[in-house]
Amino acid sequence: MTLKEKALALHAQWAGKLEIAARAPAETREDLSVAYTPGVAEPCLAIAVDPSLSYIYTRRHNTVAVITDGTAVLGLGDIGPEAGMPVMEGKCLLFKKFADIDAIPLCLRTKDTDEIVKTIALLAGSFGGVNLEDIAAPRCFEIERKLQALVDIPVFHDDQHGTAIVVAAALQNALRLAGKGKEFVRLVINGAGAAGIAIAELLLSLGYENITLCDRKGAIYEGAPYNNPAQEDIARRTNRDKRAGTLADVIQGADVFIGVSGPGALTKEMVASMAEKPVVFAMANPVPEIMPDEAISAGAYIVGTGRSDFPNQINNLLAFPGVFRGALDVRASVINQPMRHAAVEALAGCVPEGELSPQKILPDCLDRRVVPAVAAAVARAARESGVARV
Amino acid sequence: MTLKEKALALHAQWAGKLEIAARAPAETREDLSVAYTPGVAEPCLAIAVDPSLSYIYTRRHNTVAVITDGTAVLGLGDIGPEAGMPVMEGKCLLFKKFADIDAIPLCLRTKDTDEIVKTIALLAGSFGGVNLEDIAAPRCFEIERKLQALVDIPVFHDDQHGTAIVVAAALQNALRLAGKGKEFVRLVINGAGAAGIAIAELLLSLGYENITLCDRKGAIYEGAPYNNPAQEDIARRTNRDKRAGTLADVIQGADVFIGVSGPGALTKEMVASMAEKPVVFAMANPVPEIMPDEAISAGAYIVGTGRSDFPNQINNLLAFPGVFRGALDVRASVINQPMRHAAVEALAGCVPEGELSPQKILPDCLDRRVVPAVAAAVARAARESGVARV
Repeated sequence: MTLKEKALALHAQWAGKLEIAARAPAETREDLSVAYTPGVAEPCLAIAVDPSLSYIYTRRHNTVAVITDGTAVLGLGDIGPEAGMPVMEGKCLLFKKFADIDAIPLCLRTKDTDEIVKTIALLAGSFGGVNLEDIAAPRCFEIERKLQALVDIPVFHDDQHGTAIVVAAALQNALRLAGKGKEFVRLVINGAGAAGIAIAELLLSLGYENITLCDRKGAIYEGAPYNNPAQEDIARRTNRDKRAGTLADVIQGADVFIGVSGPGALTKEMVASMAEKPVVFAMANPVPEIMPDEAISAGAYIVGTGRSDFPNQINNLLAFPGVFRGALDVRASVINQPMRHAAVEALAGCVPEGELSPQKILPDCLDRRVVPAVAAAVARAARESGVARV
Repeated sequence: MTLKEKALALHAQWAGKLEIAARAPAETREDLSVAYTPGVAEPCLAIAVDPSLSYIYTRRHNTVAVITDGTAVLGLGDIGPEAGMPVMEGKCLLFKKFADIDAIPLCLRTKDTDEIVKTIALLAGSFGGVNLEDIAAPRCFEIERKLQALVDIPVFHDDQHGTAIVVAAALQNALRLAGKGKEFVRLVINGAGAAGIAIAELLLSLGYENITLCDRKGAIYEGAPYNNPAQEDIARRTNRDKRAGTLADVIQGADVFIGVSGPGALTKEMVASMAEKPVVFAMANPVPEIMPDEAISAGAYIVGTGRSDFPNQINNLLAFPGVFRGALDVRASVINQPMRHAAVEALAGCVPEGELSPQKILPDCLDRRVVPAVAAAVARAARESGVARV
């Protein structure tokens, strides 16, 4: 049986990858009188007086909504809300298995930015956080910004920030091995959608100064035709010398290639044209921008991909469970820049000093030490930045 | 410890009455490649081609949303969405324990009819059904009607229809014992909100002809001042001789009193003024319209209440788990009148012939035979009325 056949057969057999489980008894009249009427009136009345008690008397403190509009599901594009649900359930499964977070998958039958924002905002009292998932750029930026402004719980678009955190941690360790300072390296990010722009934003905030984003038409620069507002904004702040040209042009002499684009986007010739000890993160899935053996043979010093069958898997699973665990643990109102920076630092630190090598710049994504380490760092950063509520 | 103290302490200890449980493994790389990327793309693509496969490859087939706006929570009134959550979690707990249905509690931060309808409609692809809960009348009628018109899954306002089904089943058995035909009895329903109007509607559809609804100001009749549109409509179709007057006036000579109002609304004198072998359902909770011993001493033949510490507990728990189980089992697109009638008949039939007595007109709400019996009848009715989809 191929993986495809197996996936289809098992999904039908599971008949859903999640279910609801009871945490309270409902077997006897006495049980019902406590968990339901008349006893349940007491926590209701307490929360009516102080809504923050919803974090004590209901599951809110441990609940995250995983929400999509189905417009950018995996690499499949706009396949619709119902078709996005297997991914949402999968994500919720990972939340539970890796961070013991109760995540509820929701798919929305709209692509309208304001409708999406409104719908989620109206539901926010039911959750402790919102994980936006597989929503197409550039709408995802506006949705996240508007929604976070309306609600008192953290909103986190994992395709942006989860990816950016893991890339930043991988990059920190890679440059340490290469002996390069972040102020001096030149980076090229190929793919100027949700992930590419978020990576650029995070790296900029971490002190990387020289970043060029490319899309299919080459480098994006301030004033370039076809820029959407998010691209125009990031180009203005990263590509200060308004570098133009194709990827082959701008990759010359670059220290780092970060691909969130498509298969085969990076050639051996391009790798050979990079600076010494080049770092190549080819994260297109399932087929990377360049296969690791090709990149190495062309001179790459460190190669990372999104795949589990090569070294240095750059996988969001290293970030989102710990980030939300930390945010929920201190009832954070947002996931802010200090919390993202703390996650990067903690994740980079999860590779023990003695194990760090060009073949190991990140911990294994099944390494159970990662979530507690990231969560603790994120919680601490939330407290120190004043957004923790307990 | 009082029940109140115990309820509060246990709710804090439970820290939520529900959680998410995994139905798929996520321990190994192989697990992840099937339940998540890249394998998960297969069910996504299948659903994109045929959205009805969402009932096969995701949990939708067994999932119901339990949704409130927090405006009519228990008898507590408008206490807000977060404060309604303990009741929603409790309801979801009962769905799981009694019918193995995965119910997701959601509370909405709006009281606007159209916003509520829109929000739920946009979420409908995530669920197999919607249970509306604790939404104030008359808004609940419009919300249910508009929402059902927009979505392809059943919408059921339990405070209306669940209550009506259980009352109708209790009434069927009570009148059988009293030897009265439904065409000839005169009924008074005290309380003209969601439950009272739904009870009147269902009884009317079952062939009861002479029904007078009362609210605090007395009988409601076509053209009465203060009628809301739902009251005006039901008054026109039930109170054909435009009976007016106080409850004390209209109860005289009535065969049946159905109270969905408040404590003490029915006096011994009123019971004494009813027809022979009067049936009294005093369902105000926790303090009924009249205490059972008082009603009996005033001549009531059969008394039912909402309480578990008296005979004949009229409890929605006898209806909603089986109704939704049946609807989900055949993937019904709505819960229609034939399905509600089937539920009434099945529930009335759950009291074995030999056990039927004035002290036992309904099965015990913990009786595990009820859900399968109601579910089977509802599923059959869905098939016969053409709304089943499998």
